[in-house]
Amino acid sequence: MKTQVAIIGAGPSGLLLGQLLHHQGIDTVILERRSPEYVLGRIRAGVLEQGMVDLLREAKANDRMDREGHVHEGVSLAFNGKMHRIDFKKYAKGQTVMVYGQTEVTQDLMDARKREGGISIYEAEDVQLHDFYTDKPRVTFVKDGETIELECDYIAGCDGFHGVSRQSAPKDEIQTFERVYPFGWLGILSETPPVDHELIYANHERGFALCSQRSDVLSRYYVQVSLDDKIEEWSDERFWEELKTRIPKEAADRLVTGPSIEKSIAPLRSFVTEPMKYGNMFLVGDAAHIVPPTGAKGLNLAASDVSTLYRILVKVYKENRVDLLDKYSEIALRRIWKAERFSWWMTSMLHKFSDDGFGKRIQLAELEYYTGSEAGLANIAENYVGLPYEPIE
Amino acid sequence: MKTQVAIIGAGPSGLLLGQLLHHQGIDTVILERRSPEYVLGRIRAGVLEQGMVDLLREAKANDRMDREGHVHEGVSLAFNGKMHRIDFKKYAKGQTVMVYGQTEVTQDLMDARKREGGISIYEAEDVQLHDFYTDKPRVTFVKDGETIELECDYIAGCDGFHGVSRQSAPKDEIQTFERVYPFGWLGILSETPPVDHELIYANHERGFALCSQRSDVLSRYYVQVSLDDKIEEWSDERFWEELKTRIPKEAADRLVTGPSIEKSIAPLRSFVTEPMKYGNMFLVGDAAHIVPPTGAKGLNLAASDVSTLYRILVKVYKENRVDLLDKYSEIALRRIWKAERFSWWMTSMLHKFSDDGFGKRIQLAELEYYTGSEAGLANIAENYVGLPYEPIE
Repeated sequence: MKTQVAIIGAGPSGLLLGQLLHHQGIDTVILERRSPEYVLGRIRAGVLEQGMVDLLREAKANDRMDREGHVHEGVSLAFNGKMHRIDFKKYAKGQTVMVYGQTEVTQDLMDARKREGGISIYEAEDVQLHDFYTDKPRVTFVKDGETIELECDYIAGCDGFHGVSRQSAPKDEIQTFERVYPFGWLGILSETPPVDHELIYANHERGFALCSQRSDVLSRYYVQVSLDDKIEEWSDERFWEELKTRIPKEAADRLVTGPSIEKSIAPLRSFVTEPMKYGNMFLVGDAAHIVPPTGAKGLNLAASDVSTLYRILVKVYKENRVDLLDKYSEIALRRIWKAERFSWWMTSMLHKFSDDGFGKRIQLAELEYYTGSEAGLANIAENYVGLPYEPIE
Repeated sequence: MKTQVAIIGAGPSGLLLGQLLHHQGIDTVILERRSPEYVLGRIRAGVLEQGMVDLLREAKANDRMDREGHVHEGVSLAFNGKMHRIDFKKYAKGQTVMVYGQTEVTQDLMDARKREGGISIYEAEDVQLHDFYTDKPRVTFVKDGETIELECDYIAGCDGFHGVSRQSAPKDEIQTFERVYPFGWLGILSETPPVDHELIYANHERGFALCSQRSDVLSRYYVQVSLDDKIEEWSDERFWEELKTRIPKEAADRLVTGPSIEKSIAPLRSFVTEPMKYGNMFLVGDAAHIVPPTGAKGLNLAASDVSTLYRILVKVYKENRVDLLDKYSEIALRRIWKAERFSWWMTSMLHKFSDDGFGKRIQLAELEYYTGSEAGLANIAENYVGLPYEPIE
């Protein structure tokens, strides 16, 4: 079996890369360890930057998003019982974000790939990456008990934090950077109308809370919890009470509660791999880096990696610009570190840490300053809607 | 002995407050534990915000500053071997800072007070604050072996971090917030022309460095050192070598070295006292708060406290607005915490901490982002020139 670009992982990054390359006449095969149902079962991010929206349009997987997605022109930070809106139109030069679930993005990309005849092999077991320091990389995998070999020019590792791609990088080449946070997010999904038409990020003395949403009738809420907390300890009733306590009264008073249809606790982590290129194997998205969810950068960062690799590969195949391959890592990491910084900063500013009095006062001073200054508002706004994609040169 | 406002401490805050009140016909007596020579011997800050410059003009202690001080329209951050200038004219709405040493400010205020007949009692020993929770506060002190009692309406504690004023506040009323940094600044003063016409703050893998100045022929340089370092271990030669290593080559190449005329190591600390009012006793400047010197906020923050207390006292004496006295603390602390945040942030971004790889990358991402974005540049600029003084209301 042969292809030009072997893509490991059929999450949104792998599917988006496959779709974009396909439209440029570059052949891809996607290998995915799980079933399509499993992939679609993962409930993740839901805030898309303009750059990602543009990519989905270029990938022709935008019809339903444009119909069902919600354009948000602002976000609120809440502290000391008050809401402070950050107006993107005003402070981020008219840019906006699109609220549309990762599950939906994945579904749309899957449908588009199927429609256009792209090859995705699901339930590909024992995926192994070979010879990627040569010009004849290979990927082997087992499908229905049979071992198959896929020859390719390049391997794109889009298989997430736990995937095989990063694990295949030589130990003496790879460097990792990590920060683990001493708390988690307890999240629920409920079929209730969102408390606000935009997102609310709340700093409260009992801990962080986030009011997010997937649609007019589907809300996603989170509260910061201890890493020792167990899901069983959090009845829906306890969750709603805690959420109400942590958000400003004006929001709590109009909160509509209902049974949760999903409930889970996730840890928060910052993680970056350097470099992101190992011979002819390229790491993309979560395979190379993780951000804490505060600021909604994870999926968007994967999209910007896809954009970088896609634009480079097009120049490689169409203009023989093989020199650009060596720049993938540097170009991608420049934007990644800025998004890591923003996510780490938003996390630091909004969560409850230990009972360090100085730290708490600094958090409030930071919130007061950033929401009270034009430069501060522009700062949060431009990072939230997404910094510009780096040029390929 | 009687006065309206007893001022403890004849540093720049006490002298400035005395001078401003004097011009409004409000009587003050300044008590200082040290001699004038000792006070003038302290070499400290040298960057004055516009707000402080305006206050010095209002205090009529500005002639020499306006003649000899240097207006700076920018500052540079250096990292990865490159300089990044922050243009105040462009990013801080035309505001600037004045480079003029604290010693000179103190001298000018001393001269002005003497000229106008204000009473300053130097070498006042065993200063004690009494009855400041009543409407007849008293200060006692020993001068030339004799115990003297000073009756007053209000006490302004302008006597610095180690002064008696904060120590006189009741233990069950006072709350303090602190952050100690795991390093110090080794500073030298040398009679050499400054390496640059503006200040350079440098982040380097060997540690922070700062190129500052007092005049065209007097330079002030600093390098971050370990708290275990001893002055004796730092010859001038070693200092200059280390400084050259830590600043960009373009600066190092034009650095003029010479013998140091002062050399010292200072620890870095963030410290805030809440509240700043205890009955009719008010803490001002370093008596209530300390910032690390990164960002040059210490003296300027003292000046903004002076401005707040001065404006309140004028309204108290002229319009009987005694209600405003209770607001001093809240009004002053609002700006103090923002300056504490800026100083803590600049310190965190520019110094070498432990060998935490993630933290180092975040520092560089922060520097890249803030120096590469209009919102980021405006952010640093507006804080560096000084946030607006809070309204009295």
